[in-house]
Amino acid sequence: MNDLNQRYYEFRNRINDRLRHLDMPESIQAFRKSLEYALQGEGKRIRPVLLLLVGTSMDKSVDELMPAALAIEILHTFTLVHDDIMDEDDMRRGQATIHKKWNANTAILSGDGLFALAYRELMRAKHSKIDEIGIQFSEALLKICEGQARDMNFEQRDDVTPGEYLAMVELKTGELLGLSCKIGAMLADADPKIVTWLDDFGRKLGQAFQIQDDVLEISSDEEQMGKSLGSDFAAGKKTYPLTLVLSRLNQDEKKKFISFLKNNSYNRKEVLRKFRHYEALMESKRVILELINSALADLDKCPNAISQNLKFLVDLISNRDH
Amino acid sequence: MNDLNQRYYEFRNRINDRLRHLDMPESIQAFRKSLEYALQGEGKRIRPVLLLLVGTSMDKSVDELMPAALAIEILHTFTLVHDDIMDEDDMRRGQATIHKKWNANTAILSGDGLFALAYRELMRAKHSKIDEIGIQFSEALLKICEGQARDMNFEQRDDVTPGEYLAMVELKTGELLGLSCKIGAMLADADPKIVTWLDDFGRKLGQAFQIQDDVLEISSDEEQMGKSLGSDFAAGKKTYPLTLVLSRLNQDEKKKFISFLKNNSYNRKEVLRKFRHYEALMESKRVILELINSALADLDKCPNAISQNLKFLVDLISNRDH
Repeated sequence: MNDLNQRYYEFRNRINDRLRHLDMPESIQAFRKSLEYALQGEGKRIRPVLLLLVGTSMDKSVDELMPAALAIEILHTFTLVHDDIMDEDDMRRGQATIHKKWNANTAILSGDGLFALAYRELMRAKHSKIDEIGIQFSEALLKICEGQARDMNFEQRDDVTPGEYLAMVELKTGELLGLSCKIGAMLADADPKIVTWLDDFGRKLGQAFQIQDDVLEISSDEEQMGKSLGSDFAAGKKTYPLTLVLSRLNQDEKKKFISFLKNNSYNRKEVLRKFRHYEALMESKRVILELINSALADLDKCPNAISQNLKFLVDLISNRDH
Repeated sequence: MNDLNQRYYEFRNRINDRLRHLDMPESIQAFRKSLEYALQGEGKRIRPVLLLLVGTSMDKSVDELMPAALAIEILHTFTLVHDDIMDEDDMRRGQATIHKKWNANTAILSGDGLFALAYRELMRAKHSKIDEIGIQFSEALLKICEGQARDMNFEQRDDVTPGEYLAMVELKTGELLGLSCKIGAMLADADPKIVTWLDDFGRKLGQAFQIQDDVLEISSDEEQMGKSLGSDFAAGKKTYPLTLVLSRLNQDEKKKFISFLKNNSYNRKEVLRKFRHYEALMESKRVILELINSALADLDKCPNAISQNLKFLVDLISNRDH
């Protein structure tokens, strides 16, 4: 376990180092700073580490896997930059968001530039099926955008069901974790069955991860989360616990509950009491466990070397309290 | 010539047909309409036609070239969608812009989705050097973003030189025309020298094309251009003729001239008189001719079959009056 922990930090450091020294064409000057700024934010690098863990478990070297790992992390960073504009978020990865530090136009453009860099790194992966990998990469991005589009649509609705929410989260968060595992396996020429199991594993892990985030946002201290409850509820953002509550209310009660959240969202104790009253946090935690167990079952079908490595990461993610 | 004219329309129709029937993953629902809307706009399809003309001149079939041609057109459409947000333009290709018809968030997301579709189509091109082609595609996009970043920075400045403007336009417009030719040649396994000549050709054509646009914007009727002068000058947008005028003025005169444009931009006759006074339109037309001649000289180095085909397109572009 200690050994795996060390490997995670080693991988993360190598990724950070490469992100800091990403080469760009000479002519990139006017928006170079905002690109570098976005890449310097402190991320956990879970996605590229997943890719490296999968690939190295199947005897590929870190050097061979690194271009694709960078591509995954840069793609993720790009989606954060654009999502932050849409969600009007001010802070990300310990620093001001790009649209806050510069402006929305710079953030749109930096996101686009990051996207180009992500693809370029992927194309450096040197693999005979790089076109197939590129297609998977592109379709995953389409689905991630679809997830974000649904998430935004949900803000206007009071009747989002837990099932709809899970499907949205599978696209918005699960897709990229699945893709990270999938590409690691494809680069190692894994059996297609293993690729599918790992994709399923990542998808479920992503869903669990997001719902855990939703629960923490309601139940943990403001200082721990680094942001306040208010803005999300005021914007009409849906979370899994909230869809659970809504599913138990009639039309009138829904309206009342949402208006209660909008007006009392800074009164954390009261909000917490309400969610507990509907057993929404308990039920959410049950669903998280179910997803994690199902993800682990997918892992168990894979060769031992892979499943051992990834189980460690599941522990690392699911034991966080912020 | 008639034959080539017919081929242009045939290519354009085939491209339009394929764009109308682009396949997307089943799950793409929430923002599918805005993606389809963007692809339906009436474009001239100059860039993918360039790619097809180059490739077919070197014995590749339209079917083999089509995925990359679609990728180029979708990439172009994506840059238009995002540029229109940044430039606050209301109309594009005969219809309302996406951020106008929906909102800025939908436009950001649709652009991102188009980008993903562009790469996916490119990856369907089936070529042994698809990774190298993907790298060129990505770096071109980075440069296009750089061009847009510089163009926006220019709005804040009164001292942009004609040289700086040309360098910006090479990135913002020339790069993609160069890329279109380049990929057509790479897919046909052309000699690297030919690839470079065609890239240079496209770059210069793009610059000429943009400066011609600048001149038309000042000298042609509002009805012909379909937009008014005022908004661009009021926003501080630079054009080649304007940088020529600015280069002949001292600091005080620059400020006066720019403020004159901001206040008189709807008085087209007066604006025209001023630009003529500094011989800025004549000089711009001279530079356009110079660029086109230099582009044609690059073409002349290429095999006859290519240069004949492309010269036709140069005529088609340079004889337009709107």
